[in-house]
Amino acid sequence: MQAEIICVGTELLLGDIVNTNAQYISKELAALGIAVYQETVVGDNPARLTRVVNDARERSDLLIFTGGLGPTDDDLTKETVAKAFHETLVEDAEELSRLEAYFAPRGGMPANNRKQALVPSRGSKLPNSCGTAPGIIMEDEGKTAILLPGPPWEMRAMFEQSVRPYLVRAHGGCIVSTMLHEYGMGESSLELQVKDLLAGANPTAALYAKDNEVAVRVTAFGPTTEQASRLRDGLVEQFRQRLGELLYSEEEEGSLEKTVVELLTQKHQRVAAAESCTGGLLCQRITSVPGASQVFDYGAVTYAASAKRRMLGVKPAALKKYTAVSSTVAAQMAFGVRRAGKANWGIGITGYAGPTADEAAGKPAGTVYVALAAEKQVWVRRLQVLRPDRQRVRRQATQLALDLLRRQLLGLSMPECRLFGRHEIEEF
Amino acid sequence: MQAEIICVGTELLLGDIVNTNAQYISKELAALGIAVYQETVVGDNPARLTRVVNDARERSDLLIFTGGLGPTDDDLTKETVAKAFHETLVEDAEELSRLEAYFAPRGGMPANNRKQALVPSRGSKLPNSCGTAPGIIMEDEGKTAILLPGPPWEMRAMFEQSVRPYLVRAHGGCIVSTMLHEYGMGESSLELQVKDLLAGANPTAALYAKDNEVAVRVTAFGPTTEQASRLRDGLVEQFRQRLGELLYSEEEEGSLEKTVVELLTQKHQRVAAAESCTGGLLCQRITSVPGASQVFDYGAVTYAASAKRRMLGVKPAALKKYTAVSSTVAAQMAFGVRRAGKANWGIGITGYAGPTADEAAGKPAGTVYVALAAEKQVWVRRLQVLRPDRQRVRRQATQLALDLLRRQLLGLSMPECRLFGRHEIEEF
Repeated sequence: MQAEIICVGTELLLGDIVNTNAQYISKELAALGIAVYQETVVGDNPARLTRVVNDARERSDLLIFTGGLGPTDDDLTKETVAKAFHETLVEDAEELSRLEAYFAPRGGMPANNRKQALVPSRGSKLPNSCGTAPGIIMEDEGKTAILLPGPPWEMRAMFEQSVRPYLVRAHGGCIVSTMLHEYGMGESSLELQVKDLLAGANPTAALYAKDNEVAVRVTAFGPTTEQASRLRDGLVEQFRQRLGELLYSEEEEGSLEKTVVELLTQKHQRVAAAESCTGGLLCQRITSVPGASQVFDYGAVTYAASAKRRMLGVKPAALKKYTAVSSTVAAQMAFGVRRAGKANWGIGITGYAGPTADEAAGKPAGTVYVALAAEKQVWVRRLQVLRPDRQRVRRQATQLALDLLRRQLLGLSMPECRLFGRHEIEEF
Repeated sequence: MQAEIICVGTELLLGDIVNTNAQYISKELAALGIAVYQETVVGDNPARLTRVVNDARERSDLLIFTGGLGPTDDDLTKETVAKAFHETLVEDAEELSRLEAYFAPRGGMPANNRKQALVPSRGSKLPNSCGTAPGIIMEDEGKTAILLPGPPWEMRAMFEQSVRPYLVRAHGGCIVSTMLHEYGMGESSLELQVKDLLAGANPTAALYAKDNEVAVRVTAFGPTTEQASRLRDGLVEQFRQRLGELLYSEEEEGSLEKTVVELLTQKHQRVAAAESCTGGLLCQRITSVPGASQVFDYGAVTYAASAKRRMLGVKPAALKKYTAVSSTVAAQMAFGVRRAGKANWGIGITGYAGPTADEAAGKPAGTVYVALAAEKQVWVRRLQVLRPDRQRVRRQATQLALDLLRRQLLGLSMPECRLFGRHEIEEF
């Protein structure tokens, strides 16, 4: 099956928003083994959209649209595609009463919204669990059009709940997939290590490089869910063996912060964090996980040396002898915040996010020390971020901090870390 | 002039990367008054690309391409577009020696890279300051093709350095623009207020809605920079009058955090922040501004009630009587962190980011109290975030906190705020 994605919206052509919908749908279709032939962005203009629809129908079997299902006069995707697919739109009583119920506590339904209850007479509608516009499926002369709303959260929920199952049914079989997340190896090195595992047609595996980590999507097809799962599980197991300690999550939306919050919750332990160059990003990432309040009480953003001294008990002598960007100060910050936050684990991060740095001392921009303290010892790792900009330095430093904690919580090795005793660090 | 953007790359169709290049170019063209008619993403396939190029040439005057200028066999944009534009590619001696010099310390130039030195015989090349592939401009029968590299940092640098000046010259005049940033009024209300200012053809004004704020781009054309500037400045002044206190920046990349850091720096003042439901985002935003260390020493992420007590001196009686999500506790947090951080200003934020909430007390998810403390008084504002999700609540609460501080620093009004004296808040 060959597909095209058509995103409708003048705001996309003006560059007001970035087209994350196209990426999401492309990725989901790739996971289903459906090739995307072309993507097009077109404005809210019926004549241009008609041309795009007719051209795409010539080339491809499946057209997926986003946007233009809203209530305003500009929103014309449904009307325009229906014409091209020889469909008649009729008012759907169920959708209309759903809309009226939605708007009742909001002062009644605006007249404009009534057109959102129009559905194709031969085609079908897809429920919208997050908004007012239903999605639409139309089939005509062996071609299929699927119309989804533009707001990403509505579109994604609808894809998950209705479109993926529809495509799987149309495919005449079952599809299962698993996402594996690894930290610690870049995309090109990983690709070399698993090249043979990426070659198969069923199950398939694809790498998704993110900043400083890689996700692997393993997908399998089969006549039944059991048969598809068996195929998938075999390949997943091979990836588990190759990735080893680097594999940190097998959840669809896995992240290091989620893994760490889960591990801490299981162990009834808590972490406290002291941040300098990362400016609060580590606290931010930990507390973005629902339920983080079970494992996180306190974080300190100690930007100034004075704040490091007063809030964390960093020693003036250490600051003087080693400077604020040093393994000793990172370690003292980790011990200090662990104590202040009455936590099991303390994390200290200090470094040069740029543009300031200390080249003379061999510490260019992008040099960061990350420390993880337990009661009596502390692990410190020096990180050198390549092509440092503030955002990249912060992201990579917090990734490393979370991974060090994950490794300790699982009893794994601590690569490239120096280990110090508490007395060694605090004797100033 | 009518333009199209054509992004070449199978990785885009697979959803491996999000197409930020299309957004960047769209926005830049909009600022230059050039309408983008359509955007297309196509794989690395000469036959399909040829069709896309020929179709786009029929419709539009200017085609901007990204991607496919690399050294591999897949990279065929230059060869394919040259054919459609009746161009011959010839080896450029200067580019070849630049490539050889680049690869000399890296073990010599791979044979593949030689083709990157090919340039059109009639067209021109654009220097690449960040990579190996030069950009290309070709003109044919009144149509223009501009070929840019795919990596965003290379593409953007080339656009800035070569493409924008080329387009301005081609336009036969001068273009100037200014970005205005406002906080406090949503897009639809603002649109009503300034509808008449959005109608003109030169100067033009366009609204860019962001989460909880709106930016306005004012652009003008003229035969000279002076004449264009005069046109622009007239319209900017009208927006200044309409926006009043809501206008917080006239910088291209303006943000509330940037404005606040600049104002504090001018006044030699400092702010400290205590965050609960925002989990460090406010510290993160302030410290993302280069130079923030001049105005920010200390922030506390006090998630637990115990941390609010110990680190900030929040009173147990206040927590008991009003709960942690209350104006009194927000105010105590603000005073507490101001003292702990030895700052001029203290910010306290506490609320329900969701899913937890206290519906019975009339505090559903999305209820946040934001407090700004000076030495002897504190302003507190209650925020109710609609459609609350963790990210939206955090973003809106930190926006409000930064805006309250901006208003105090400029001596503006404090809308919807309650004012308390320190004794009133601390007498527990």
